[in-house]
Amino acid sequence: MEKADLLLKNATVITLDEQFHQYEPGAVAISGDSLLAVGAEREIVEQFQAHETIDCGGKVLMPGLVNAHTHVPMTLLRGLADDLRLDVWLMGFMMPVERQFVSPDFVRLGTQIACLELIRSGVTCFADMYYFEEHVARATAEIGLRAVCAQSILKFSTPDAQFFEESLAAAHDFIAKWKGHPLIVPSIGPHAVYTCTDEILQATVELALKFDVPLQIHIAETALEEENSRSEFGMPVVPYLKKHQLFDAKVLAAHCVHLDDGEMNTLLHYQVGVAHNPSSNLKLASGFAPVNKMLELGLNVGIGTDGPASNNDLDMFEEIRLAALLAKNVSEDPTALPARTALSMATRLGANALHIGDITGSLEPGKRADLILVDITALHASPRFKRDQNGLYAQLVYTGKSTDVRDVMVNGRWLMRDREISCLDEKELLRQAGEYAQQIDAFLIQREKSVLSKLIAIGGTVEEESFEVQAKVRVTDPEPVLAALKQPGVEILRARHYDEFDTYFLFADPDMGTLRYREDEFIEANGQASQARYRLTLIGAAREYHFKSDVLLSRSRYLAPATYSLRFYREYFKPVDELSIEKDRQRWRVLFRGTEFYINLDRLDQPQLGYFLEVKSRTWSRRDAEHKASVAEELLVFLSASQGERVTKDYLELAQATRTAHE
Amino acid sequence: MEKADLLLKNATVITLDEQFHQYEPGAVAISGDSLLAVGAEREIVEQFQAHETIDCGGKVLMPGLVNAHTHVPMTLLRGLADDLRLDVWLMGFMMPVERQFVSPDFVRLGTQIACLELIRSGVTCFADMYYFEEHVARATAEIGLRAVCAQSILKFSTPDAQFFEESLAAAHDFIAKWKGHPLIVPSIGPHAVYTCTDEILQATVELALKFDVPLQIHIAETALEEENSRSEFGMPVVPYLKKHQLFDAKVLAAHCVHLDDGEMNTLLHYQVGVAHNPSSNLKLASGFAPVNKMLELGLNVGIGTDGPASNNDLDMFEEIRLAALLAKNVSEDPTALPARTALSMATRLGANALHIGDITGSLEPGKRADLILVDITALHASPRFKRDQNGLYAQLVYTGKSTDVRDVMVNGRWLMRDREISCLDEKELLRQAGEYAQQIDAFLIQREKSVLSKLIAIGGTVEEESFEVQAKVRVTDPEPVLAALKQPGVEILRARHYDEFDTYFLFADPDMGTLRYREDEFIEANGQASQARYRLTLIGAAREYHFKSDVLLSRSRYLAPATYSLRFYREYFKPVDELSIEKDRQRWRVLFRGTEFYINLDRLDQPQLGYFLEVKSRTWSRRDAEHKASVAEELLVFLSASQGERVTKDYLELAQATRTAHE
Repeated sequence: MEKADLLLKNATVITLDEQFHQYEPGAVAISGDSLLAVGAEREIVEQFQAHETIDCGGKVLMPGLVNAHTHVPMTLLRGLADDLRLDVWLMGFMMPVERQFVSPDFVRLGTQIACLELIRSGVTCFADMYYFEEHVARATAEIGLRAVCAQSILKFSTPDAQFFEESLAAAHDFIAKWKGHPLIVPSIGPHAVYTCTDEILQATVELALKFDVPLQIHIAETALEEENSRSEFGMPVVPYLKKHQLFDAKVLAAHCVHLDDGEMNTLLHYQVGVAHNPSSNLKLASGFAPVNKMLELGLNVGIGTDGPASNNDLDMFEEIRLAALLAKNVSEDPTALPARTALSMATRLGANALHIGDITGSLEPGKRADLILVDITALHASPRFKRDQNGLYAQLVYTGKSTDVRDVMVNGRWLMRDREISCLDEKELLRQAGEYAQQIDAFLIQREKSVLSKLIAIGGTVEEESFEVQAKVRVTDPEPVLAALKQPGVEILRARHYDEFDTYFLFADPDMGTLRYREDEFIEANGQASQARYRLTLIGAAREYHFKSDVLLSRSRYLAPATYSLRFYREYFKPVDELSIEKDRQRWRVLFRGTEFYINLDRLDQPQLGYFLEVKSRTWSRRDAEHKASVAEELLVFLSASQGERVTKDYLELAQATRTAHE
Repeated sequence: MEKADLLLKNATVITLDEQFHQYEPGAVAISGDSLLAVGAEREIVEQFQAHETIDCGGKVLMPGLVNAHTHVPMTLLRGLADDLRLDVWLMGFMMPVERQFVSPDFVRLGTQIACLELIRSGVTCFADMYYFEEHVARATAEIGLRAVCAQSILKFSTPDAQFFEESLAAAHDFIAKWKGHPLIVPSIGPHAVYTCTDEILQATVELALKFDVPLQIHIAETALEEENSRSEFGMPVVPYLKKHQLFDAKVLAAHCVHLDDGEMNTLLHYQVGVAHNPSSNLKLASGFAPVNKMLELGLNVGIGTDGPASNNDLDMFEEIRLAALLAKNVSEDPTALPARTALSMATRLGANALHIGDITGSLEPGKRADLILVDITALHASPRFKRDQNGLYAQLVYTGKSTDVRDVMVNGRWLMRDREISCLDEKELLRQAGEYAQQIDAFLIQREKSVLSKLIAIGGTVEEESFEVQAKVRVTDPEPVLAALKQPGVEILRARHYDEFDTYFLFADPDMGTLRYREDEFIEANGQASQARYRLTLIGAAREYHFKSDVLLSRSRYLAPATYSLRFYREYFKPVDELSIEKDRQRWRVLFRGTEFYINLDRLDQPQLGYFLEVKSRTWSRRDAEHKASVAEELLVFLSASQGERVTKDYLELAQATRTAHE
């Protein structure tokens, strides 16, 4: 007889291997971290002698569930804000709170709570993407769950990086350190096309290829993402990523809601794994993912919960059931996505999507012992019909609850026995979570009083903050500037001329920033005013950096189309003071030494302050900002304006100073 | 101080009244079966002196959930057949099994199991529709739950009635006996437009009005139902029901998936309650109900689980969450159907939809004490943010599980305390359910060997059985018949002429019936054959009744379009014998003495057996069958054929006799 460490017998074994073998009564033999054998009880018992034998009492013994997409530390933000539009939810609540609170301690606590919830609902492996990801990995490994952990990279400031270079460097160190760990597969996570630059995409692919680790990214989650990709890049998201060689890496793509057949075929060609997130897609009204089509095509489509702030939990039983139900109605075919397929998505196909299908996802000899025992005799799941082998899958999918999971083993080690988890002090974790919640509540209650939250409350598309390199010079005569713009050396991409009427709302607390209501009247070549544009901008108080020669790095905060009247905003925001500025602006978008700049030649008419020349460029990284600051200097020289008086005040400050002088 | 029987204090009270009052800490005072007061703890404690005071430990105290549409005895058929098309599921599995097994004992057991499951998931009231409904009512009342119980009425044979008159009579007695019961509201349930006749609709409305009880019906569940209504009645389902005065009753309409704005307005005008069944609609691919529109219009839209055979459980927490999530994606608006609205659908609006909103559905003084206590401190629901009052609803809807319900009270009486239910022996109930499951398994395994199940297995639309009154006469000369058809007294609605080629498959077991593959070639006025039609009919062996003069009541079993070739069916069904019949058929649909008949004048060409005249009419009730049998006799006289030889054998039997004679 062969030796084994552990025999699990008298189980209803569903292997979820490619042939969907079932054994009743069945058994598995385990040695160390791996499965030695899976089969009919009689055969296994005859073949193996084990140190320990456990009678499973007829429970279902199946591979542990694979949560293919989540952000586990967000358990601490669960229920923070619901029933909101994605932009308001993300930019109005999640991002500000994350910037304020997310730290290694936060990430560790949130991960521990998530792991408890995941184990209780039968998950043995998950794919994560967050900040301070090494702390997610560490907490997960300590508890003993399996995970593919991606350090997120975004072009915006994040809780763990002012600029993307910092998070990329952290990701490099994280991957180098954890590569080869028995439980954790380190990974890199460029967040999405719309939150990354080409440079970020390229750097993350290189990193993934260098270490041969998976790359996680959000793809085609919303129709807007697709729309923007088409208008900005002239193509949908998938071809755009293909063009940037992203799929050379082992990619796990979350969402994939808005894809056409060609894009699905591209994903198939590059063996991209897909994470379908049914609850999240419904809750954020992202659309219905073409799950049937992707499965028929042969894509490895797993199922994920997405982050617990947008779900609001990590219950894979709910997701599996929802995936099976949704696909039927979307395809108008009740035979679509049967229970058996749904369960294989949550196990084998999910593991394949994570690019770790060789070690987990089904009960097969040689794979790691990642398994769960599920009680299917509860009242809500009874009776059991045995006529059809598929009945067992249907019972698990359509009546199973996460609370029916009794035991969980990962890598050959029990993490839960009869619903008891001993490795963590749940009460203490919840106490700490409660403390965070109190602080976050206080932070948001305070913020509710702010202009930003009121701006968000009235909706509209709100743009994320952006950084701008900016140099401003007072000019006495505009002609040399206009003449310089006709010289070679600068390429004019677009020219506009308009009257700009700005109304600034000032608030008692300067930290609230200033709200600008702006009306632009475009002036055509014939001198006539044509269409008008109304915008609302919330301008933060802070200037972040000064470069040499008074080139500023400034932050513009939030921008929204102003759909209501000035009167409405005045009454709604109740500013303590108000100031108007009127100017004639000539504006050019130009290419200078390979860099794009905006040039504004402004004539301040109210108050009458004369001409100003502004040179501006957007930036997303520190290195890029430094580079652009020096090119901006050169552009001022080119425009014959480098000798003019440098102005570091904005127009509002200039107007305020003028008013004070007149009082 | 005022007196009360019971005070519940230190609770997080959410009343779900129209103003959505919340009290934290809150309390309620109860006297007998009713709520005396609901409010802030301090005020309630000051105002009332009670025999007993219970500290709720901060749990959420809210109205019990209302399951607005279900068929509770079907707990015993849970998981019997899944991932199937509605017709195959219903006619291939549910109806045959129900015909075989559903009895008062079955209904009682299934109801008891359902009630246990409902109590455990926080339901205090449900709307049911099934057979032997008095036994549903009795079991429910014994346990102590509140329910609106409708005796189902269908034009088909049901487990409790061969003809609808029997079930209608049973419904009358049931309603008369239970009207005024403190827990049970008796009700009448014409199943749906497509399963009822006008006569049934009329009779059920009369009954509902006579006793002033609710009427339950399925409305616009599938696109096919709407399509058929338009083609058959020239109008959608709602106007058709309006035309038949159905909405004069207090109607609870289940599903309402395929409605236009006009139909919704009709429902609103007549104060029809709606039961939305999200899981069922998804699982059977019925479509997405226009829930937002119905709510905006002001309809009382409740939430139901539908029967546990098509869900597969009675978990209202799953349904509430799904209702809230689905509506967002369907309307492409994540702010649609917020958690608060979803919870009010599952409580107050649901009770209104059941037409018992005056006594239950919210925590308000004077209403019955139907309430639950829910623990919201579990790990999967933590932490709790208190910034926004709506957070509590979101916590219950998006992270709440049925297993978080700790206590349930109905009509002032505790049914569950700290998850313990003492009134039933769960183990014994599950043992009995297991026995039924074994018998049903055996029955279906046996049937798997049958032609019917094989017919169903290959899909296609399968029609339900129908009853036909039929008289057949051998005629030597067709001319007098043709002449009579030109006389006044018979109105020809349609005339057709075709060659009919029938191939009969015979099987070893005559109980399997006979399968007929039929090819019709239509003959145009110019004598040319035009389009052909291929159909498959499974004909049962049984003749049900003989009326006088050899008028037969026969049962045609299942009809499907034959989409494959004769060769395919021969190989697939493997008949032991085969027989071909070829005939020239002239067929008329006529109106005679106010009754619709089909008249077939057949010339049997192979075998050559001469002319036959058949007179047929469909029927759904015994009284109607008797009436039509006598009119058929009169029609034979009118057609100058009453003297011909009466034939009670069908063509297959005649052909078999001929073949035997030649052997």
